[in-house]
Parts: sequence; C-alpha cells; structure tokens
Amino acid sequence: MESILIYDTTLRDGSQGEKINFSAEDKVRIAQKLDSVGVHYIEGGWPGSNPKDIHFFELAKNVSFNHARLTAFGSTRRANTTCDEDENLKALIQSETPAVAIFGKTWDLHVKEIMGSTLEENLAMIYETVAYLRSHGREVIYDAEHFFDGYKDDPQYAVETIEAAVSGGADFIVPCDTKGGTLPFEIQEIMDKVFSNIPARIGIHAHNDCGLAVANTLEAVHAGAVMVQGTVNGYGERCGNADLTSVIPNLQLKMGLPCMTDQNLNHLTELSRYVSEVANMTPFNGRPFVGASAFAHKGGIHVNAVMKNPKAYEHLEPQAVGNERRVLISDLCGKSSVDYKAEELGIELGGGGSDSKKIAKEIKRLEHEGYQFEAAEGSLELLLKRLTGQFRPLFELESFRVAVEKEKDSPCRAYATVKISVGDQEEITAAEGSGPVNALDNALRKALNKFFRVDLETMNLVDFKVRVIEGRDGTSAKVKVFIDSRDQKSVWSTIGVSTDIIEASWQSLEDSFHYKLSHT
Amino acid sequence: MESILIYDTTLRDGSQGEKINFSAEDKVRIAQKLDSVGVHYIEGGWPGSNPKDIHFFELAKNVSFNHARLTAFGSTRRANTTCDEDENLKALIQSETPAVAIFGKTWDLHVKEIMGSTLEENLAMIYETVAYLRSHGREVIYDAEHFFDGYKDDPQYAVETIEAAVSGGADFIVPCDTKGGTLPFEIQEIMDKVFSNIPARIGIHAHNDCGLAVANTLEAVHAGAVMVQGTVNGYGERCGNADLTSVIPNLQLKMGLPCMTDQNLNHLTELSRYVSEVANMTPFNGRPFVGASAFAHKGGIHVNAVMKNPKAYEHLEPQAVGNERRVLISDLCGKSSVDYKAEELGIELGGGGSDSKKIAKEIKRLEHEGYQFEAAEGSLELLLKRLTGQFRPLFELESFRVAVEKEKDSPCRAYATVKISVGDQEEITAAEGSGPVNALDNALRKALNKFFRVDLETMNLVDFKVRVIEGRDGTSAKVKVFIDSRDQKSVWSTIGVSTDIIEASWQSLEDSFHYKLSHT
Repeated sequence: MESILIYDTTLRDGSQGEKINFSAEDKVRIAQKLDSVGVHYIEGGWPGSNPKDIHFFELAKNVSFNHARLTAFGSTRRANTTCDEDENLKALIQSETPAVAIFGKTWDLHVKEIMGSTLEENLAMIYETVAYLRSHGREVIYDAEHFFDGYKDDPQYAVETIEAAVSGGADFIVPCDTKGGTLPFEIQEIMDKVFSNIPARIGIHAHNDCGLAVANTLEAVHAGAVMVQGTVNGYGERCGNADLTSVIPNLQLKMGLPCMTDQNLNHLTELSRYVSEVANMTPFNGRPFVGASAFAHKGGIHVNAVMKNPKAYEHLEPQAVGNERRVLISDLCGKSSVDYKAEELGIELGGGGSDSKKIAKEIKRLEHEGYQFEAAEGSLELLLKRLTGQFRPLFELESFRVAVEKEKDSPCRAYATVKISVGDQEEITAAEGSGPVNALDNALRKALNKFFRVDLETMNLVDFKVRVIEGRDGTSAKVKVFIDSRDQKSVWSTIGVSTDIIEASWQSLEDSFHYKLSHT
Repeated sequence: MESILIYDTTLRDGSQGEKINFSAEDKVRIAQKLDSVGVHYIEGGWPGSNPKDIHFFELAKNVSFNHARLTAFGSTRRANTTCDEDENLKALIQSETPAVAIFGKTWDLHVKEIMGSTLEENLAMIYETVAYLRSHGREVIYDAEHFFDGYKDDPQYAVETIEAAVSGGADFIVPCDTKGGTLPFEIQEIMDKVFSNIPARIGIHAHNDCGLAVANTLEAVHAGAVMVQGTVNGYGERCGNADLTSVIPNLQLKMGLPCMTDQNLNHLTELSRYVSEVANMTPFNGRPFVGASAFAHKGGIHVNAVMKNPKAYEHLEPQAVGNERRVLISDLCGKSSVDYKAEELGIELGGGGSDSKKIAKEIKRLEHEGYQFEAAEGSLELLLKRLTGQFRPLFELESFRVAVEKEKDSPCRAYATVKISVGDQEEITAAEGSGPVNALDNALRKALNKFFRVDLETMNLVDFKVRVIEGRDGTSAKVKVFIDSRDQKSVWSTIGVSTDIIEASWQSLEDSFHYKLSHT
C-alpha cells in the first residue's frame, strides 16, 4: 500500500504559535530530527517574509536529508506584475529546495476586500505562479487558502481557483481550513464534490480552532487525500494546526494506512518531546499518544484492571508510539533499565550493597524531586558511581560566595569566591563574570588549575538551560539547571535541582567538572 | 428546538486527571459555577468510592441549584448479591440527588476477565440496579462502559446489556468510549445500528486518547444523541474527556443546536479559566474557543487582514464565547499591530515624537536583543508608556546587592539588600529568600510597603521562566526571564533580558511591581 505523505510545517506554521520562536539553528536541528523519523516533506519557512528564514535555507544547503524533501513556502506573485519581477518568488528559487509550497486565495472576500484585487487577476496569479515554479523544475504543492470558507461562499469560483492551479501543473492540491472553523461532516461533503475528478494528488491542511483538526484530517484522508499537513505537537497560529503526533498513529494504527516504518513510529514520543524542548514549551501531559499522561492510570479500578490486562483501559500498546505506561500511585520497577544503563557505561553494580533494584528506587526518588537523568547522562554516570562506591571525588567544595550588585541604571556586576580542597590542600580564588554562574565557573577553573594538569582551556560549557519545575510558586519555585559541556573529544550533560537557582547551577557545574576530571 | 442536555463530569471524571485534586469545598464552588452558566446535569462524584465524595454530597444538600440536576455516580450492584445489600447503592440513595448515573459492563473481556463474573449475571446486575434506583424515584442515566469496544468484540451481547438497562427503566442510555480509541466513522456506524430504535433518550461519553473526543461527541449527536457528557477544559483520566468548552460552541454556534442561552455562552471563557484556577492547572493557551491564544494573531499578513475584516482569519466572533481578539507583538510586527495594541491598552501615541512606526522599529530592535513582548504584555504596556513619555515611575532603584553562600554540603543561603527612592525619600531593606530572586522579591516588597498603601500581599508571582537565548555560550549566555504575576483581579507578564540572570530577573521583577502599582 502506498504511504500517506507526511508534510510537516512545524518550522513555518508552527512558529506562528504564541510564544514560539525558533532560531535558524533550532530549525536545522528540528529538520534533521524530522528527517530521521521519516517525514516526507519539511516546510522550512517563508524566505520571502523574513531574513531568519533566508538564513535557514542557506544553512540547510549544507545538510543532507536522507528521506525528507525540504520545501520552501511562499505566496502567489503580486497582482498586476510578472513572476520574473517578484521578489518573493525569487527568494523561493534561491532557496534551492526540491519542492515549493505556494498558497493562493480561494475566497472572494480575501481577493477583493483584503488584497484589493479582482477575481480574474487572482486566477492568473495562481496559474502563472504554479507554472513558473514548475518551469524551474520544482515540485509544486498548491495550498488553497480558506478553501472551505471560500467554497461555502462561492463554490464555482473556489473550483476555478483549483482548476487554475491544476492547469499550472501543480503536483499536489491542498485545500486548507485556514480559520479552523469547518466541521468534519462539511469536509467530507465538500471534498467528495470537488476533488473526486481532479487530475492531481490531494492533501489536507487543517487548523484546530474547533478542536477538530485531527478529525478533519482523518475525514479528508477518508475522502481521498494522500498528503497530510500538520505540525509536531500541533503548534501553530491561534489554536494550532493538526497535530501530527495524533494524526500519524491514527492513520497508521487505527485506519491501517501506513505513514512511516513501525520503527520510526516508535520514536514519535521522543520527537514530540524533542520539539517541545527546542521550542522551550512545557510538554503537554494530556497530549494523545505521546503525552506523559497518555497511558497513566490513576483510578484504583483502572490500575487494577490494567495489571490484569492492559487492553482493559488502553486503546493500544504505549510502546508502539515510544510512550510508556505509568501508574500514578504505585512505583514501577526500573531494575532492567538500570542494568542496561550500567552495562552501557561500564559500571559494575553491587558495590556498597547497591544493586539495580536499590538504585532504581533512588533514581525514582530523585526524579520525583525534579531530576531528569534522561537529559543529563553525565550526572547519571556520577550518580551510579556514587551509589556503588566507585566515585572518588578529585576535589571537594569547602565554600563559595557569589554576589551580584547593581547601582541605578548601570549593569549588574557579579563576582564569586570559591574555596576547594584537594587532599589536604586548600585553595581559595575569586573571579568576576557576566552573571553569577559565569563568575562561579571562572573562579572554580582558577582553583582547579592549581592542582590539575588537565587542560581546562579546551573544556567549554556550551549550553545552559534553566527549567522551572511546576510553575506555581513564583520566584521560590524549584528549578532544574542543565549544563552541556564539551571538550575536544566529547559532549556531556549534567543537572542540578534546587529552589535556589545558584545552588542548582553549582550542582550542575560541579558535576560537569567532576565528569571532565574523571575522564582524562 | 429542544436543548441538547449538557452533562458535566468535571467533578468526577475530571478529577481522575493527573495532578488534579479537588477538595469537597472546591467541588461545591465549581458546581455552583456550572449551575450559573446553565449546565443541565452536574455529576458530583462517586459516593461509594471515597469519603470526600460523600462529604461533597452532604455539603451539596444545603446548596440550591437553579438549573442543574445534581447527579451521583456509581456502579451496578456487586455480583451475586441483591441491591438492598449493596453499600455502593446505599450511598447513592443517601446522596439524595434527583438523578443517578450508573455504569455497567458491556464488554465480555471486562465481565469475565476483570470482574470474574458471567455474562448472565452481568445482565441481571444492570437490570436490577436500574430498576432499583427507579423504584426509589431517581432519574437514571445508564453509562454503558466500553460500549464501542464491547460492540466490536461481541455486538449481540453489547446490545443485550443495553436492553437490560432499558427494561430496567433507564431514562438515558449513554454509550461510553471509555478507552478513547474509537474513530468518528465507527461512532456513527455503530450508533446508527444500535440506537435508532431504542425507547430511551441517548447520550454520549467520549475520551480523548486519539484526539477525537470532540469530533466523536458531535458525530454521536449527529446520530441522535441528546445528552453530551464531558468536562470543563477536557480534564480527565489519561488524555481527558470531551472538552465541553469546545463541544458546546460547536453544537450551538456551528451546528445550530441550542445548549444554553447566548448570554450563558458569553461566560464560557470565564468558566474555563475559573475551573483551571480552582484545579490549580495552568490554563492552556491553545484551547479552542476559550484559550488566550484562540483569537490571537501573530503573522503580519493575518494582523493586517483582521484589521480590515475579522472574518478574514476568525471563524467566529470571540465575544460569542466571552473571549477576545489579541494582536501579538513580535519581531514580525509592523505599524498596524502597534496601533491596534496602543488602542487596546488605551495609550495615546505620538508623545515624545514616538509614532507607531518609530515604536515598531524600537520593538524590533529589542526583540532582536532577545526581548519577546508577545509573552510579556505587562512589559509591553510599560514600554509603550515609556516611549511616549507617559510613564511616571512610582519608585526608582538606587542599588541592590544579592549574595548567595554555600558551605560544604549544606544548602545555599541567599539574601538581598535593596535600596529604592520614592520622590526624595529613600529606603533600604534586606531580606532572605529561597534563592537570590526570591530574596530580591522579598526585599523589594518590604521597601515598597513603606511607601504604598497598595495591598502587595494579594499580589503573587505565579510563574518564573528562564530561557537561554541561543544556548551556545555556556554560563555567559544571554538569558530572558519571564515572570507571571497575579492579584485578585488579573494576571500580567513581564520580561527582562541580560547575560546576568540576576539582572534579567530584576528587570522582570521591577516591571511587575511597576505594573501593579500603576494599575491600582
């Protein structure tokens, strides 16, 4: 059976979501992740609308995608001009992507009232733009903006716009429910009427303003669409786009329409969390299929039944989408994951009486406090060594003191004093920094340089992330601080947790230096 | 036209959601709110399952509901016993609610494997329980648990369970998609087959495990259901229940099926936020109809078009559900967004020579530095006032000093000194805190309390977020700090940006207090 084509627009429509802001580098990282799970098309941005997207397509020229076709997005040419003169189209061509998505107007309200153009000119704009891009060798995806609203207003004209795109040679025609106000019944009815005899492949682009984007997408596939457009986690303007993390498993596991390999589907939960991480959005626990609560059981009856037979209260196996069952009141044993991890890191268990069961229990306790070791394997390694008596600290903290001062409008000044001991020797140092954590980092380096011949110059802290745990207590909330460090050989991540951001940063910083010193 | 009956189970199924925990008093408050907006049935809890719910029904006896029928929930009698002996049913009767909801088993997997009973006994349990409650003068709503899964497994037996409930005299038969795994197409097909000739009114109870709870509910109404069960904000076990804040406007405004008065519908957004407040859950911005982003416009083209005609990018008038249009100020913003925003905030432009073009340019510059005003409308308001000479600071910072100290393994201690001036008076204060920002917050409050009669006690910082900008420079990277604050009337967000996390936090904190003081 031919695959349904997954068209991801997280990088373009997704970035229209409130509070979402990707750098060009973020976009490259997400695109690579999308490619790795087998998405077919990745819409990278609108090079005609802003310099950041132009920069992204420049960066992307040096990235090779194994599976996905990178797609640039733009609008039909301006009214009363030619394609050759159009800056927007020029930027599209210069993006050098194999595929291009073009949106055009279906709805006379938009043509007349918003664009101030005529219905005839709009048809010419659609036809000529599609034909122009085809003549430049691009695969063309035509997004019919406001298709359903336009059709309800003036069905004949709506169909004419589609015909213009088909005549221009569009490879895909994608009716868009741009305002997200269309009901599933209407999707089916209108698509049956319009698209059953169109000589192009059909897609669907749905928004979630009525909470129906996923249902509308499935309806459209039912009615013959072979390409589904959406975003990871449903990010997007207003209430967002169709959430691909729901659309894909519904198509593949419920409707039996393949979208990707089963192995790639196993990475769906990971994809969802990765994108929310890069977008710096708190992952939504209740998200279907991939949310942390999606297979979490709380009610006593449910827990009991699931332990007899998971089918009793689970509509599919969580593993199929890379998620996991959770029981919210009782502990689940992570013994086997600890064994697996220890072997991977070459750590022998059993030392100090700590077997994998005891360790799993301790990890659970720490995770409950806010630690998150899956994102801090450097700290996990040190923890396993500590718990099994295999950790010998190369330095110990005696004390530190950080101060930050501000006078009127001038910028803050930060400085730190750090006192450490190595064996029976002590060293106290002081340093300034751009911020308290940087000052601590600088002071600690100075102190360590007295004792170790290790080249700390080549060790850099490359990323520093702060996460508030349970954002409910304002400035006294608990935070976790992740630090990514690298030297010439490797990269490692560490974590600290505290209500005091400096304490949490210190834990993470200290782990990072311990890790470095023990791997030299 | 007869109203579709709205059956709310926020207090029962909603409280099964992860991290949701209502006290009996919380439940009373929510029930009163639900009654005030015209919900028809309020399922208050399961008195047979826990003492809190028994307490709730005791409290509720002293509450008079104007519109809603309070409903107690329970299961069919235990196997191989009589209704008279059943403690669960006794608790239901003692709740003295006019209506009672009873769930029974449809699916042989549950009857045999989970309950360990027989198919015959299960039918007797359903029939007898419904008849018993009817004989006690209760209106009986029969929830057919796992109806769709059961039907797919053994259609004949599933229908027999429904017939048992009908024979017992059930007023409503409510097929439940308990695992949330059923597709809209299946809902329609199965309901058409089973329920077209049943002599009882039909309802629907859908879960959101496939992201389809709202669509499935609409499908069921299409197929004849007259009662819709769901929860406010879709709270509930795993991925939650059908979200009534989407179901109601879809039925009433899109499908033309009345559920409540237009006036009550105007309170839908308020209801959503009230329940999230009592549940202590962060409101989900992207929630259809009632979320803060539901009518928020970010892309320049969209903002421009909406100002010409809101219909261009809004599927209905936000006022219909008590929500409002918002224009997000971002690096994509232009002159027209600034004009719109200034009018919304009641700020006159032009002061100090700053027209909307100049302001848009300054906002772009700041956004480039890392500010993100769409997520910090409190700071945006202050900025617009500053740029147009309309900001009069009620206090000024003279200096602050924060110190964090750590000795060996003991936790950090943080304290701050803050000196401010108000007019020609100065005040210096000191405070401790759980972390440096909390210490600054505490010290600043103390200082402000000397000068202002404003009740800062009721002002709380409810969220504190730190984001690293372009996380590539380790501990000297630039960070932005967002603070969400609230008092009894409103919530506002502020932002600060610096390489020094304390400086950025201070900016955000200072803006928050300036905002509070200027709105009192």
